[in-house]
Amino acid sequence: MDEVRLIEVKEDIRADNEKKADGLRSQLKAEKTLLMNLMSSPGAGKTTLLMKSIGMIKDEIKVGVMEADIDSKVDAEKMVAQGIPAIQLRTGGFCHLDANMVEQGLGAMDVKGLDLIIIENVGNLVCPAEFDTGAVLNAMLLSVPEGDDKPLKYPLMFSICDVLIVTKTDYLSLSDFDMEAVKERAKKLNSNIKIFEISAKSGDGLEAWTDWLKNEVLTFVK
Amino acid sequence: MDEVRLIEVKEDIRADNEKKADGLRSQLKAEKTLLMNLMSSPGAGKTTLLMKSIGMIKDEIKVGVMEADIDSKVDAEKMVAQGIPAIQLRTGGFCHLDANMVEQGLGAMDVKGLDLIIIENVGNLVCPAEFDTGAVLNAMLLSVPEGDDKPLKYPLMFSICDVLIVTKTDYLSLSDFDMEAVKERAKKLNSNIKIFEISAKSGDGLEAWTDWLKNEVLTFVK
Repeated sequence: MDEVRLIEVKEDIRADNEKKADGLRSQLKAEKTLLMNLMSSPGAGKTTLLMKSIGMIKDEIKVGVMEADIDSKVDAEKMVAQGIPAIQLRTGGFCHLDANMVEQGLGAMDVKGLDLIIIENVGNLVCPAEFDTGAVLNAMLLSVPEGDDKPLKYPLMFSICDVLIVTKTDYLSLSDFDMEAVKERAKKLNSNIKIFEISAKSGDGLEAWTDWLKNEVLTFVK
Repeated sequence: MDEVRLIEVKEDIRADNEKKADGLRSQLKAEKTLLMNLMSSPGAGKTTLLMKSIGMIKDEIKVGVMEADIDSKVDAEKMVAQGIPAIQLRTGGFCHLDANMVEQGLGAMDVKGLDLIIIENVGNLVCPAEFDTGAVLNAMLLSVPEGDDKPLKYPLMFSICDVLIVTKTDYLSLSDFDMEAVKERAKKLNSNIKIFEISAKSGDGLEAWTDWLKNEVLTFVK
C-alpha cells in the first residue's frame, strides 16, 4: 500500500475565512475542478459511501479525496488501498476544516486533471457547518440509526447543505426512524435541499445519487 | 407537560476553566451530589439510555438532568414528560459545555436533595473531551452503527472517560462491528476504562450498568 500523505493543518485565526473561501472557489472554477464538502456525525458512513460512489463514477470522472481527521490516517489509508488518490489532513484537535486548511490541502494535492475533489470533513454536525471551506457543493449524511430528530437539533447543518443523503437505510427494519418526518423537517429548514436515500451496504439508492453527482460535475467542468 | 426551563449559556473566554471546574467539584462534594458528564456522537442514544437508566434507579437515587444542545429543547422535554427533573442549556452554537456553562445551569436547578446530576453534553466526540465540566465521572456512549474504529479516530475522548458504554448492541446482528477490537483499542488508550455493553431497546446489559452507577453514587454521597 502506498504511504498516505499526512498534512498537519493549522487554523489561521487572522485569515478572513470567507474571503479565502471565495478565492478558492474562483481558483477551482478556473481549473475546472468541482470541490464538494461532505459532512456528518462520526460513524454515519462517509468513508464507505465515498469508496462505493467513487468506484461507480471513476471511469468517467477523475476524483481526488481530502480526508480530515483530528488525529488519524485511517480514512485516507482505506482510500489509497482502493486506488483512490487521497491525502489526509490532520487538524490537531480542531473539529472542522476552514478555507485556509483546505488551501493547505490543495497545495499538497495534484489538483490538475481532477474533475472532482471531495472533502471528507471531521465527523461533527456542529462546527463544520459554521466554516465555509470554499466548496461549491455542501453535502451531509444522516444515518438511520442516528434518529429522525437531527434536523431539529442541528438546524444550521441542514440549512447550509445542498444535499442530504440519508444512509444506512438497511437499518430501517430495526428502527422507528420516520423518513417522511426527516424530509419534512429538512425541507422546512432548506426548501431547495436535494434528498437521497441510500444503503451503501446493499447498494440501494446508490445509482440515483452517483448519476446526480456525475451530472453536477460534468455540468460544472464543461 | 410542564414547561421546560431553557437557559441560554454563554462561554466566558476569560474564565479559567479548570479552576472553575475544581470549584464546582468541591461545591458538589460538600452538597453530596455526584455530577456525571455523558458524551457521545449525535444520535448514539444518550437520551434514550438516560430515560431508561433513571427509571431503574429513581426509587433509590434522586436524579436531575442538565441537557445541552446547540438549539433545541427536544431532550429536556422528553425527560420532563417522563417526570424527570431536567433543564435545557442552549449553547447557541458552541459544540461543548465548559465549567462556566455548567455553573450557570446548576444555578438554575434545585440541586439540594439531588444525589446525582447527569449532564447530557452536546453530541460531539471532539470538543466536549477538551473541556472539564466539573464532573467527577465522565462517561461516553459509542453506538454499534458508528463503527469500531472510533477509538482510533477520537483518542482524546476515550482517554478522558471513566466509562465507555457500547450501545445499540441490538444492531450487532446487522453489523460487522468488532466488540473485542473496540475494547482492546479503548483499553490501550485508557487501561482503567470501565466498559458496558447495552441495548436500551431490548434492555440487555442495562442492569449491570445501573447497578454500577447506583453503587458509585451511594459511595460518593454517604
